[in-house]
Amino acid sequence: MGLRLLIAGGVAAGASCAARARRLSEEAEIVVFERTDYPSFSNCGMPYHLGGVIAERQKITGGNVKMLRERFRIDVRTGVEVTRIDRGAKRIEVRDVRTGRFSWEAYDALVLAPGAKPIRLPVPGIDLPGVHTLRHVADMDAIAAHLARGPRRAVVVGGGFIGLEMVENLARRGLAVALVEKLPQVMPPLDPEMLVRVHGHLRAKGIALHLGDGLAAIERQGNGLRVVTGSGQSIEGDLVLLSAGVRPDIELAQSAGLEIGPRGGIRVDDQMRTSDPHIWAAGDAVEVRDIVTGEPALLALAGPANRQGRLAAEAIFGQPSRFRGVQGTSVVGVFDLTVAMTGASERRLRAAGIPCKAAHLHTADHAGYYPGAQAMHLKLIFDPNRGTVLGAQAVGGRGVDKRIDVIAMAMQMGATVHDLAEAELAYAPQYGAAKDPVNMAGMVGVAHLRGESPLLGWDEIEEADVILDVRTPAEVEGGRVPGSVNIPLDALRERLGELPRGQRIAVHCAAGVRSHAATRLLRLRGFDAHNLTGGFRSYEDAEEAGRVAARVRRT
Amino acid sequence: MGLRLLIAGGVAAGASCAARARRLSEEAEIVVFERTDYPSFSNCGMPYHLGGVIAERQKITGGNVKMLRERFRIDVRTGVEVTRIDRGAKRIEVRDVRTGRFSWEAYDALVLAPGAKPIRLPVPGIDLPGVHTLRHVADMDAIAAHLARGPRRAVVVGGGFIGLEMVENLARRGLAVALVEKLPQVMPPLDPEMLVRVHGHLRAKGIALHLGDGLAAIERQGNGLRVVTGSGQSIEGDLVLLSAGVRPDIELAQSAGLEIGPRGGIRVDDQMRTSDPHIWAAGDAVEVRDIVTGEPALLALAGPANRQGRLAAEAIFGQPSRFRGVQGTSVVGVFDLTVAMTGASERRLRAAGIPCKAAHLHTADHAGYYPGAQAMHLKLIFDPNRGTVLGAQAVGGRGVDKRIDVIAMAMQMGATVHDLAEAELAYAPQYGAAKDPVNMAGMVGVAHLRGESPLLGWDEIEEADVILDVRTPAEVEGGRVPGSVNIPLDALRERLGELPRGQRIAVHCAAGVRSHAATRLLRLRGFDAHNLTGGFRSYEDAEEAGRVAARVRRT
Repeated sequence: MGLRLLIAGGVAAGASCAARARRLSEEAEIVVFERTDYPSFSNCGMPYHLGGVIAERQKITGGNVKMLRERFRIDVRTGVEVTRIDRGAKRIEVRDVRTGRFSWEAYDALVLAPGAKPIRLPVPGIDLPGVHTLRHVADMDAIAAHLARGPRRAVVVGGGFIGLEMVENLARRGLAVALVEKLPQVMPPLDPEMLVRVHGHLRAKGIALHLGDGLAAIERQGNGLRVVTGSGQSIEGDLVLLSAGVRPDIELAQSAGLEIGPRGGIRVDDQMRTSDPHIWAAGDAVEVRDIVTGEPALLALAGPANRQGRLAAEAIFGQPSRFRGVQGTSVVGVFDLTVAMTGASERRLRAAGIPCKAAHLHTADHAGYYPGAQAMHLKLIFDPNRGTVLGAQAVGGRGVDKRIDVIAMAMQMGATVHDLAEAELAYAPQYGAAKDPVNMAGMVGVAHLRGESPLLGWDEIEEADVILDVRTPAEVEGGRVPGSVNIPLDALRERLGELPRGQRIAVHCAAGVRSHAATRLLRLRGFDAHNLTGGFRSYEDAEEAGRVAARVRRT
Repeated sequence: MGLRLLIAGGVAAGASCAARARRLSEEAEIVVFERTDYPSFSNCGMPYHLGGVIAERQKITGGNVKMLRERFRIDVRTGVEVTRIDRGAKRIEVRDVRTGRFSWEAYDALVLAPGAKPIRLPVPGIDLPGVHTLRHVADMDAIAAHLARGPRRAVVVGGGFIGLEMVENLARRGLAVALVEKLPQVMPPLDPEMLVRVHGHLRAKGIALHLGDGLAAIERQGNGLRVVTGSGQSIEGDLVLLSAGVRPDIELAQSAGLEIGPRGGIRVDDQMRTSDPHIWAAGDAVEVRDIVTGEPALLALAGPANRQGRLAAEAIFGQPSRFRGVQGTSVVGVFDLTVAMTGASERRLRAAGIPCKAAHLHTADHAGYYPGAQAMHLKLIFDPNRGTVLGAQAVGGRGVDKRIDVIAMAMQMGATVHDLAEAELAYAPQYGAAKDPVNMAGMVGVAHLRGESPLLGWDEIEEADVILDVRTPAEVEGGRVPGSVNIPLDALRERLGELPRGQRIAVHCAAGVRSHAATRLLRLRGFDAHNLTGGFRSYEDAEEAGRVAARVRRT
C-alpha cells in the first residue's frame, strides 16, 4: 500500500499536483478536497464567458474531473472543505458543505492549494446586492444572472488583469463601463509611462476612466447602485465589479501554526515544503522567490501554480526537482491592445535599490514595407553594469506576446543585452524584421553598456546642460520639449559649432533611432552626448504619466 | 584622416557594415560599391510585391541609400562592380557597369559582401525567355513585366523559401501553379514528417505538386514553355521560376587567393576576417559555424547577414565582438500556414553522428476553451543524455513563429528540456496555455531523460515487441497501426494481464498525451513501456513521409 496523499484545493495547483502524483505512484491513495463543486475549472476564461466570447459555460466548468477520477484514480471530493489540520496526528478535519458534517482524514503527506481570495475593501456598501467579485464559478454565475437582467451601466473597481478583462467583456455585452482605480494607472506591475496608450485606448473604446481615485463607498441609487470615490465623485452603475486584487488564503495554514512569509503567503522552500515536513503548499497561497529582485513575492498566475503543484508531487515522491522562483511573465488583452511584461519594473527595481537602466522602443511587429504592421512599444530594463536583462514590458498589437516570451526565456537563462542583440530570430517580412524589436532593444542596451550611446531617461534630464532635438523643423512644429535646441540630424555635422563642449548634451529625436546616430556623431567629435530614451514619443508618454523632470514639464 | 574602408556589395551585410562603421568613426572614408542600381533593397519582400501584397515597387527598391549617403556620409557607388583585388598593393579594381571603364581604389580595410547567386541547374533550356530566377531587383522587374503580359500557368522549380513564397504569390495573382522539387519534400531544412501537412495544404490550394522529381529540361511549347522532369513528366507553363537555392558568390575572393571553406563559402574567423588580415567578408558569401553541429555552414538569411556586416565593422575598428555562429532560425508563410524552425534537424544530426531524440506534439496556439485556436505541430529535438535542446520545427497557424523564437532564444543560451519545461511564458487564454506548447515539449523531453516515459520514434518501432494502442475503440475504427493491440487507457489497469512482462511495449494514442499516462502506469506496474512520439497523428505523418519502420507500414 502506498502513502496517503491529501490535497486541499482542486483547482490549478491542486489538480496538477494530483495528476502528477499519480504519474509517480500507482499505489498512493490520492484524495482531493475541493470546497466548491468545480475542481479544475478554467479560471482565466470566466471574463470571456461573461462577455459571450466563450459561449458554453461547460467550457469553463468542465475541467478534467472525470479524467482525474477515472484515468488517474484520484478521489476527488467536491463540496468538501478542509477546516483544520492536526499536525501532530497527521490528520485533517473536513466538512461536507451540504450536510455540515465534520470528519477526520489521516495523511502521510498533505498539500495545501487553497488559492487566493478577492480583496474585499472595507468600505460601506460592499455587500449590497449587485456588487460582485469574480473568483469562483459561483461568482461567474451570479454575474451572468445579473447580466441576464439587462443592466445598462457597470462600474469596475480595480484595473488589474481581471478588472481590465471584465471592462472589455462588459463593454462587449453592450454595457456602459466606468473603471475606478486608486493608482494613477491600470496594470500596476508595469511602469506608468507604458500605460499611457492603454488609457487612451480604453477612453477611445468609450470607457470612463477614473484613475488615481479609490473606492470610498457603494450606495443604493434608485434601482441601481452608486460608487462613491475618495475624491467625492459619484458614478452610477447597475452592476459593480470589485477586482481590487487577491490575497493568499492562509487561514487554514495559519491556524495550524505553519510559517507565513513577510508578504502574507504560506512560506515554502524550493520544493514547496512548508515549515511542517509533512505538509507542502502550492499555488496562489504561497510565497515564492522573485528571481530578479531575490525578494519574496506573491504571484497569482496559472502557469506557476501548475508548476508548483507538480513540483510538490515530485518532492513528495522523492524527486530532486526545485522551483526556480517566478519572474512574473504575464499578458492581458485590452480590446485591440495586448499588454505584456516579464521580470521587474523599473519602479520595483528602484524601490529595491537595484541599479537599472531602461531602453524604450517605438517600433512595429513586422517589417514596415509589408502591409499591416502594428505599432509596438517596448521597454527593456537591464543592469547598467553587467547588462543582465531585468525586465521587459510591451504594449501594442500582434507580436507583443512573442517578444515578451522571447525575453522571458532569455531572462530565465541569465541573458544580457548582448544576447538579445545577437539573438537569431525567425524573420520573414510578415513575421518580424531582420533586426527584430528584441535585437533592437538589445542593441540599444549594448550601446549604453559600451558607452557608445549612453541612455538618459526623461526623468533624469536634470543632469543635462543642453537638450538637443535632432528632428526636422516640420516635426518640431508639431510639439517640442521646453528649452530644447533644434538641429536636424542631417545638418548636425555642419552646425557642431553651435553646441557647447564640456557640457552634457541630451539628444532626442522622435523615437530614438536618429538620436542614437546623433549621439554617436557627437561623441566621436568629442561632445558629451547622451541618448534620451524613446525620443519625443517617450517624452509625451512620460509627461502624461508625470515622469518627466521638472525643467521639461510643459504644464 | 581616418582609414579608407571599401565595401564590395551594398545589400544587407554591406549596408549594415557601412552604417555601423560610420557610428564607430567619423573620420573613416567609407565607400560602398554595388554592381546593381539598388543597394540596400528589401530582398525578402520581392515575392510579395510580385503577388501584389506590397503594392509599391518603391517599398522594395527604396532602401536607405539617401540615408547612407547624407546621414552617414557614405560614398555609395551604384552600378560599380569590384572586379579584382590586388592584395599586395591593398587596392581593388572596379568597373563602371555603364561605361565599362576600369579604375583602381586603394583600401586600408576591405569588406567583401558579394552575396549569393541563384543556382542555375545545368539543363537544356535554362536560358529560354520566360525562365526566371529571383534574386535581384532586375529579376523582380523581369517577372513583373512577364506577369503583366497575363501568363496563366507557372512552374516553380525548387521548394525552398523563395520557391514557396513565389508559389503562393503566383497563385495569388491567379496563375495555375505547379511546383517541381527533386527531393520528396519542400523545405529541405525540416524533417520530412513535418512537411506532410504543408504538402496537403499546397494541394488543397490547388498547387500541382511534383515531389521527388528533378528538372531535366525546359522546352518551348507553342507560345509557352514545358518543363520536363527527371521521371519524364511534362508540365506546361507560361512562366518558369527557378528557385533551386543559392551558392556563395566567391569569384572575386577565389581569384584573389582568399581561403574558401569546405562548404564553398569564403572562410572567415569569428570576427569575419578572411585569410588576408586586411580583408573581411560578411553575408551570404561566407561560411559560418553551425552552433549546434559545430560544422561549417552556409546560411543565406538577412538577420545573420546584417549581424555579420556590423561585426566586420566592429572588428575593423578594434572592438572585441565575436560572431557566435548560426543556428538557422527561419520562417516561411505558405498560404494560411506558417512553417518555422531553429537549430538542426533530426536528419542532419544523424548524418553528423550526434545523438538526438525527438518529441512530436500536436497541439494548438492557445487554450482550447477559447474560440479560434489554431492547430500547431511542434517537433523538439534534444540530446538524449544531457537534455540540451538541439532544434525545433513547427507547422501551423498563429503562434508558430513565437514558439520557434522562444526555443531559438533558449538554444542560444544553452537551454535544456528542463529549462523549456520550467519556462514562465505569458498566459491568457487567447495567447497561450497555462502549459504552453514550449513547456509541454520540454516536459516530454524531461520525462524521457528521467526514464519516466522513454520516447520511441515511429522509425524505431522495430525495437518493440508489442505495439499498444490506448485509444478508444471508436478512434481505432478510423484507422490503426498494423499489428497493434488495442486496450483503451481507461481500461488499462483492469487489463494488465493481457500484456507480456519482460517485453518492450510501445504505447501510442492519438497525439501523445494519453500514451504518456499509459506509459507511466505500465512502468510503475513493472512493464517495459515506451511512449511512441506524437501518437497516431505522427504515425500517419511518418507513414506518408516514408519514415515508419517496415513492420508497421500499411501499404
